[in-house]
Amino acid sequence: MSWGEKMRNIKLIIQYDGTNYHGFQVQAGTDVATVQGVLEEVLSQLTKEKIKVVGAGRTDAGVHARGQVVNFKTGCSIPIDRFTMAVNSLLPTDMVCSSAEEVADDFHASFSSQGKVYTYTLYNSQIPTVFDRHYTYHVPYKLDIPAMRAAAAELLGQHDFAAFRSAGFTVKTSIRTLRRIDIEEKTPLIRITFEADGFLYNMVRIITGTLIEAGRGKLTAAEVKRILESCDRKQAGSTVPPHGLCMERVLY
Amino acid sequence: MSWGEKMRNIKLIIQYDGTNYHGFQVQAGTDVATVQGVLEEVLSQLTKEKIKVVGAGRTDAGVHARGQVVNFKTGCSIPIDRFTMAVNSLLPTDMVCSSAEEVADDFHASFSSQGKVYTYTLYNSQIPTVFDRHYTYHVPYKLDIPAMRAAAAELLGQHDFAAFRSAGFTVKTSIRTLRRIDIEEKTPLIRITFEADGFLYNMVRIITGTLIEAGRGKLTAAEVKRILESCDRKQAGSTVPPHGLCMERVLY
Repeated sequence: MSWGEKMRNIKLIIQYDGTNYHGFQVQAGTDVATVQGVLEEVLSQLTKEKIKVVGAGRTDAGVHARGQVVNFKTGCSIPIDRFTMAVNSLLPTDMVCSSAEEVADDFHASFSSQGKVYTYTLYNSQIPTVFDRHYTYHVPYKLDIPAMRAAAAELLGQHDFAAFRSAGFTVKTSIRTLRRIDIEEKTPLIRITFEADGFLYNMVRIITGTLIEAGRGKLTAAEVKRILESCDRKQAGSTVPPHGLCMERVLY
Repeated sequence: MSWGEKMRNIKLIIQYDGTNYHGFQVQAGTDVATVQGVLEEVLSQLTKEKIKVVGAGRTDAGVHARGQVVNFKTGCSIPIDRFTMAVNSLLPTDMVCSSAEEVADDFHASFSSQGKVYTYTLYNSQIPTVFDRHYTYHVPYKLDIPAMRAAAAELLGQHDFAAFRSAGFTVKTSIRTLRRIDIEEKTPLIRITFEADGFLYNMVRIITGTLIEAGRGKLTAAEVKRILESCDRKQAGSTVPPHGLCMERVLY
């Protein structure tokens, strides 16, 4: 960058299969493959600058994304309508850029976010799945969907979700607003869609584990409500595995 | 087997993700992973006998199956309703047994077959796919579906399909009856379903390559008809890659 050049702020929407990544965030001092690491390498190669990207959310190892959002500053002059193809020609096959857009200087993929949508997908059948095995969690038990919906309804709205958070990340508050939990059945798939202003660490995976208990008749909706009110992680269900989870969309 | 014991004939329906296999058939004198090899190992372990399986079709390296059929003879007394679960508890996660059935002595997965159904799936979009990348073939060009259907119609019925066969396998005749080619569009997916009494080596992949040429406006239906009549492999389209191909069903 020489004096007087204008820095552009570029927003990308990224899809990835998280199976082979140790999560989104670069892990300093290690060699492990991360989504952020691959993106920064590819974008640096493309722009011939040292690029740092900001991600909307730090997905964990094994978690997928259909709509992760990142932004980065660059002085390069590559036309925006060429960006998607150029990035995809350099990305490995388990990552795809589905859109590129030039945004205002103050756009920040994480701080500008007004909310996020995640899905967790169950494969509910005695026979496991071959083709969806990396993208769904196999649940061989019969699940009572209306009971799961009744339990989910207890969690909607603004609450302290401390009971549905893993230790490990420190955030100021564990109060979040859960705007939506939709449970759709398309046998043998059960897709649970979560929308909130933000999510605590492992929140979707712990709520899903708790809803599965409700679906198996081990927890009533009233008990799920009491778990929420207890703010005690030990009361809630187990943390289901990462590979059923997908970051679908970031809302701005 | 002691004298007087009855040998059972067991038919299994098998699904597999062909990505990590060197095809269905055991390759003598090599160490490569094959579907048949894994099945025989698992069934031998389960029955405590040396099991040989007969497959309905020899899928190539990288080709998938949702409905491969195998049969094998065994003297074991494992109840048939326990078989599926028992086999699945031993199979790797990229193979699943979806049904087990005891059949008549003379049932032979290959010789008893009256026909087969294969699908070839295209991912027709400028942006490649992450989640379907192992199960679809990415075609970034715009395809004219009615033109593909018109070309496909020329191939229906009983013909000498020598133009749509790779060298390498010797069979007595290259005459086959192609009963059905359905082309369904569910944007961005295009699924082509083929049903025939039998298929020549690479026949589905060469026909698909030829239909793509028709979809791109490079071949008319009349030209595809002439290619069929030429019985000359060099006239037809290229052999599309294995990972879009899936053996769906065997008809008995």
